[in-house]
Amino acid sequence: MIKVPLYGQERIDDLLTDGLGIIQSREVFSFSMDAVLLARFASVPKYGKVLDMCTGNGVIPLLLTTTTKAQIEGIEIQPRLADMARRSVQMNELEDQIEIREGDLRQLVTETGHGYYDVITVNPPYMPVTSGEVKLNQHQAIARHEIECTLEEVIFSAMQLLKAGGKLFMVHRPQRIGEIITLLCKHRLEPKRIRFIHPKIDSESNMVLIEALKDGKPDVRILPPLIVYKEDGKYGDEFMDIYYSEKKGGKDRR
Amino acid sequence: MIKVPLYGQERIDDLLTDGLGIIQSREVFSFSMDAVLLARFASVPKYGKVLDMCTGNGVIPLLLTTTTKAQIEGIEIQPRLADMARRSVQMNELEDQIEIREGDLRQLVTETGHGYYDVITVNPPYMPVTSGEVKLNQHQAIARHEIECTLEEVIFSAMQLLKAGGKLFMVHRPQRIGEIITLLCKHRLEPKRIRFIHPKIDSESNMVLIEALKDGKPDVRILPPLIVYKEDGKYGDEFMDIYYSEKKGGKDRR
Repeated sequence: MIKVPLYGQERIDDLLTDGLGIIQSREVFSFSMDAVLLARFASVPKYGKVLDMCTGNGVIPLLLTTTTKAQIEGIEIQPRLADMARRSVQMNELEDQIEIREGDLRQLVTETGHGYYDVITVNPPYMPVTSGEVKLNQHQAIARHEIECTLEEVIFSAMQLLKAGGKLFMVHRPQRIGEIITLLCKHRLEPKRIRFIHPKIDSESNMVLIEALKDGKPDVRILPPLIVYKEDGKYGDEFMDIYYSEKKGGKDRR
Repeated sequence: MIKVPLYGQERIDDLLTDGLGIIQSREVFSFSMDAVLLARFASVPKYGKVLDMCTGNGVIPLLLTTTTKAQIEGIEIQPRLADMARRSVQMNELEDQIEIREGDLRQLVTETGHGYYDVITVNPPYMPVTSGEVKLNQHQAIARHEIECTLEEVIFSAMQLLKAGGKLFMVHRPQRIGEIITLLCKHRLEPKRIRFIHPKIDSESNMVLIEALKDGKPDVRILPPLIVYKEDGKYGDEFMDIYYSEKKGGKDRR
């Protein structure tokens, strides 16, 4: 890793795979388990064009480099976060593979044209705009609430930006699965694989991973549940494999 | 149980709860695990009006009597199956609680009017009409394929027949969860609880239970997965409890 400037309370965290590091900041943005699970769930072709919407500090593009040589773009509307992501890309010397765009995902199609990407990943804001966000600072509020764009705008933009046969990978809250599926189907993105994450085997799901295929036929596979904790309170074996293991076949960057 | 006539290769099977029996026939109709899990999943008020659509040989109405004193109707379009169901009701001396209607569920609203039932249960045909049904006899084909009514007709009829705040409980195949959720939301039936059944902890889901609320607000709970078999090939504990146990508080009918 090469040295880059850090601002405010920023720190460098280890992504625990391929020697990658990432700039984080408690006051501004830190990635969550959701982003890591999404990056591991997404099946990305070896070559092609990938877009990560709502990229935040760029955690998903960074993780995707361990499994693909595809060109990866991340788009982020918040200048402060886009700058963090850019410095993380520099730090990991990944400028040839990752480009961070600062901008509004709803406008991106005017630059790229329709049907530009093979794969889109997105960890969007989970919550509609309510009075709840007043306790958060502006950076966190925009990342968590649909202030800058709604779920339907994310899905509609993904549909425009994906090639026919292109895939959208999304992580979201199961509470909204009804809306998510309805909107995906409305916008020609057919759900194909869905995986629910449960904290324990006997608890309700608190996270869902979805793969949708542009202009696919209706036929959904509900994958085995992913259980985070075993009964003894330790992480489950599959969860550990997904979350902490070095990716097989990744570039040796250490 | 009182004696009733049996026809062809009909036999009497034990429903393994509250001393209930049911008339079955390999050539005509036998209930499946799906129906039992749906009956156990449905939360039925102690009193009120319940309808079981596509009732077949009446297995769901019979099982529901172990947990509610509500008036239960079953509607079945096939005369042969409706007759089996009626004789099972007689055999169990449940004529005061269960009425079997022979008829088309799409026409029922013209008799009852809108908003008549508190709860509707349905184990509909799972498969669209394709060339696949030619290997089945007519009774099995109608039970398994959407020959007499489509998924949308089932959902639309349920919406008409349910009171505001009434609940629909459905069992179906996860492959069609996209269509199911889209159609439920389209017809004012908001999914509220969804439970996926997996044969094993590491296998894809092959059955889904859905509770939808008429005119409810969007907010879905994905319940813990129900795993049928343990790693040693034996039935899981929760599955055994649901499937084989006598219902607590059921009437002693033995």
